[in-house]
Amino acid sequence: MRHLLSAADLDHDEIVEILDLAEEMAQVLHRPIKKLPALRGRTVVNLFFEDSTRTRSSFEIAGKWLSADVINISAKGSSVSKGESLRDTVLTVAAMGVDALVIRHQASGAPLQASQWIDAHVINAGDGMHEHPTQALLDAFTIRRHLRAETPDVIDFAGRTVAIVGDITHSRVARSNVALLRTLGANVIIVAPPTLLPSGIDSWPVEVSTDLDSVLDRADVIMMLRVQRERMSGGYFPTPREYTVSYGLTRDRLAKLRPGAAICHPGPMNRGLEISADAADAANSLILDQVAAGVAVRMSVLYELLGGADETVPTKEHA
Amino acid sequence: MRHLLSAADLDHDEIVEILDLAEEMAQVLHRPIKKLPALRGRTVVNLFFEDSTRTRSSFEIAGKWLSADVINISAKGSSVSKGESLRDTVLTVAAMGVDALVIRHQASGAPLQASQWIDAHVINAGDGMHEHPTQALLDAFTIRRHLRAETPDVIDFAGRTVAIVGDITHSRVARSNVALLRTLGANVIIVAPPTLLPSGIDSWPVEVSTDLDSVLDRADVIMMLRVQRERMSGGYFPTPREYTVSYGLTRDRLAKLRPGAAICHPGPMNRGLEISADAADAANSLILDQVAAGVAVRMSVLYELLGGADETVPTKEHA
Amino acid sequence: MRHLLSAADLDHDEIVEILDLAEEMAQVLHRPIKKLPALRGRTVVNLFFEDSTRTRSSFEIAGKWLSADVINISAKGSSVSKGESLRDTVLTVAAMGVDALVIRHQASGAPLQASQWIDAHVINAGDGMHEHPTQALLDAFTIRRHLRAETPDVIDFAGRTVAIVGDITHSRVARSNVALLRTLGANVIIVAPPTLLPSGIDSWPVEVSTDLDSVLDRADVIMMLRVQRERMSGGYFPTPREYTVSYGLTRDRLAKLRPGAAICHPGPMNRGLEISADAADAANSLILDQVAAGVAVRMSVLYELLGGADETVPTKEHA
Repeated sequence: MRHLLSAADLDHDEIVEILDLAEEMAQVLHRPIKKLPALRGRTVVNLFFEDSTRTRSSFEIAGKWLSADVINISAKGSSVSKGESLRDTVLTVAAMGVDALVIRHQASGAPLQASQWIDAHVINAGDGMHEHPTQALLDAFTIRRHLRAETPDVIDFAGRTVAIVGDITHSRVARSNVALLRTLGANVIIVAPPTLLPSGIDSWPVEVSTDLDSVLDRADVIMMLRVQRERMSGGYFPTPREYTVSYGLTRDRLAKLRPGAAICHPGPMNRGLEISADAADAANSLILDQVAAGVAVRMSVLYELLGGADETVPTKEHA
Repeated sequence: MRHLLSAADLDHDEIVEILDLAEEMAQVLHRPIKKLPALRGRTVVNLFFEDSTRTRSSFEIAGKWLSADVINISAKGSSVSKGESLRDTVLTVAAMGVDALVIRHQASGAPLQASQWIDAHVINAGDGMHEHPTQALLDAFTIRRHLRAETPDVIDFAGRTVAIVGDITHSRVARSNVALLRTLGANVIIVAPPTLLPSGIDSWPVEVSTDLDSVLDRADVIMMLRVQRERMSGGYFPTPREYTVSYGLTRDRLAKLRPGAAICHPGPMNRGLEISADAADAANSLILDQVAAGVAVRMSVLYELLGGADETVPTKEHA
Repeated sequence: MRHLLSAADLDHDEIVEILDLAEEMAQVLHRPIKKLPALRGRTVVNLFFEDSTRTRSSFEIAGKWLSADVINISAKGSSVSKGESLRDTVLTVAAMGVDALVIRHQASGAPLQASQWIDAHVINAGDGMHEHPTQALLDAFTIRRHLRAETPDVIDFAGRTVAIVGDITHSRVARSNVALLRTLGANVIIVAPPTLLPSGIDSWPVEVSTDLDSVLDRADVIMMLRVQRERMSGGYFPTPREYTVSYGLTRDRLAKLRPGAAICHPGPMNRGLEISADAADAANSLILDQVAAGVAVRMSVLYELLGGADETVPTKEHA
C-alpha cells in the first residue's frame, strides 16, 4: 500500500490486515511505556487546511508512539493564506524531506492530487464531502471488537446491519463507512431526511430510509452522524428540535434498539441534538472506544505505509 | 499523589517533597544534555482553553526533558468551538491513551471535574479565579532558594512575611500562594485596593491591608500581581496612573523595602504599571528565577504523578 | 560562531564551512532514518512574532533530525499580546533553559537585541526589512550545487552573476543575499522598479538596473522576489498586471535567459505575478531545491552553534 486516499480503494484483505495490525498496536495503549521504535527517524507532517483537534491529535499521538517525528502545519497562518497554490504548498512541504503527509482539506480530491505530485506517502484525513478513510477503519475496528465480545473469531460483517443516520449529503464519514462496511460484507441502511440524501444515492449499495423508527430494531450498529450547526440555517430542516424529533437518537428510540445493538458517533457530539445523553452514555455506546481505536488504527496505517524494513524515501532530482 | 488540583490539597510534607525533587530537577537546567529518561513513553497533553505561552511552554519543556511525549491542544480551533461539552472533550482526549492531562480553563473547578471523569493524572494549570498550584510551588521554590542563600538549611517559612499586592479578587495566583505559604508557615499580608479585595477575605488566614506603604518594611518577600488591563475599564480603580501611585512598586517604594527583601512577579509584567523597571531589574528581583523554577517544579510534579516504577495506566473497559 | 544574526557578519571561510557541513547534513534527507544524535538534550525554541510556515517548519525539522527538542512559540496568543515587552519575553523564554532561540520579528534588529540580553544562541529567522541570513545561506548552497553540476570543485562564485529582481526596498532576503553573494565573490545585479529601490542603494556593492530585459542574458542565476500583495495598494506600481509586464519572469523572458541559467525564488510564489508557471516549473528552476537546502543549511547552522563537544549552557545567577 503506497497511499491511503479512500476506503473504496481498500480490498477485503487489506482492510483485515490493517485491523489485525491495529489490534497489536492497541496493546500499546495499555502499556506504561507506549513507545515502539518502528518509525524512528521518519518524519510525518500533519498538513491541516481545516481545523480538527481530535484527528490531528490522534495522528500525532500515533506517530509519536511509533517514534516518528511529527510536525503540525495548520493552514491558518501558513503560506496558504498568502495565496500560494495547493500544489506549491504540497511540493514545498514534501521537499523538506517528509516521509508521510497526512492531509485534511476542504476540497474533495485534494489528497489524491497531492499523491500525484509527490513521492511521500499520503494519508487522507478528510477531504471535503468525499472520504475520511481512517474514520471508517476505526469504526470497523470498534465494531469488530464489539462483535468479537460475543463471537470471538468474527472477521467479516456478513449478516450484520449497520444504520448510518444523519446528514449523508455532506458526510465524508458516511461515504467512507459505506465503502468499507460493504467490502466487509455488512448490510448498510442509510437514514436521513430527504433534504440530506445526496443525489445519486440510488446507485449506492445500501438500503435507504427516511424513517428512523422503522429501522431501530433491525440494526446491529447504529451510527449517528454529527449535525453541522451551520446547516441549520441552510433550509435542510426547519429547526433543531424538529431534527431531534425525527432523526435524533432519543431516550425513547434507545429503548427500541435491538438488545446489544451498538451505538457509534464520530464526534464531536451535539448532545441533545442528534444524540441524547442517555444514548451517548449507554452501556452499549462505543463512542470512546472509537476514539481509542483511532490511535491504534492510525498507528497501523502509518506502519503499513512507512514501516517496511527496506523502505527508502524515493528521491527526485531536487530532493 | 494522584492529581495536582489545588495548593490547598497539599500538606507540608508533600510540598517539601516536591520542592526537594525540584532541586534535583533544576540541575538539569545547567547541563548541556537536559534529558532524563524517567517518563519515556508517557504521553502528556497540554489542554489549554485559555492562551498561556509561558505556562504551556514550561510544561512542554518539563515534559520533554523527562522524555515524555507532549501534545499541545489549544481550545482555539478545537472541538470545543464546535459546541462539544467539556466532559466530552476531556473524555475524548483521555481515551487517546493519555497519561497526564495539564488543564487550563477559564472556569473554576474544571480540572477537579476532569479528574472525576478520567483515569489519567490531572494537573491544574490555572482554573478561573480558583487556583494555579504549580505557580505557588515555583514561587515557594524560588523563595526557599533565596532564603537558603543566607540560611542554607531553611525548610519552612516560619517567621517570614510575604506580601501579595494587587488584584486579589481575580487572582488564582494569590489564592494558591496563600494556601501554600500558610502551609509552609509564612505570614501573609494581602495588599489591595478595597475594590479588589474578594468578599470573604475576612476568613482567609492572612493580614489584610489597603495601604502598601505601611507594609513595605515588614515584608521579606513582596509579590506583585499582574494587573489585567481589561479590569481597567471595570470601575475597580480610576486610572492606571492612580493604580501605580497607590499600589505600584515604584522606585520610591523600592527604596523603602527591607534590605534583602525579594521581589516576585508571576509575569507577564506591565512595566510602569504594577511594577517599575527599577524594581523589575533590581538585584533582589527573583522574577527570572521564578521562570527557571517553573520548569524544575513542573518536572518534579510530572515525576511525582507519573514517575513511579510500578506505574501502569489505569484502563477502563473502553481504553 | 556564537549567534547568526546577519549574513553580513559572516566571512568567506565561515560561509564555506557552513555550506560544506550542510552538504553532509543533506545526506540525511536521502536516508530512511533521518536522525543524528548530535543535539540530543538541547532545546531549540522557535519564537515567531510573524507567521511563517515554511521557515518555522524547516527549523523544526532540522532541529528534530539532530535530536534536539524543539518548542514552537507563536506571538499570536502569547504574552506578547498581553503587552509584555520584547526584552521580557526573550528573557523569560531564555530563563526556561533554552539553548538556541530562533527569532522572527517584524522589527529590524530584534534578534541582535535578543542576543545582547541572553546567553543562549540566537538565530535570526527574518527581522523586518533587515536580514534573513539562513535564506541567503540556503540560496548559496543551492547555487553552489547547481554550479558544481558543471564544475565539481567550485567554492566561490567569482565571475558569476546573480540578478535579484523585485521589491528590494522591503526585502530582507535581498539584503542577506547581497551580503553573502558578494562575500563569495559573485557579481550582483539588483533589478527593481524605481519605486522599490531603497534609498541608499548607491552605496550597495551591486549594479542597479530598472530594466529587467537588459539583464536577462547576463545572469547565471535569476532570483525572483515575492511581491507582497499588500504593497499593491501602496502606490509602488499601478497594477499587478503592469508589474508582471515589466518585472515578471514571463514565458517570453524565460526564453531569453542564458542557457543553463538557474531560477530561484524564496517562496511562497505568486504564480502569474512575479513568476510565470513556465518559469517556476522549468528544468532549471531550483525552487524546490532551495526548500530542501533550507533543512540542510539549518541543520548545519544549529550544529555550528550548538554542536560543540565541550558546549555547556552559560548560566547566570538566576538560571
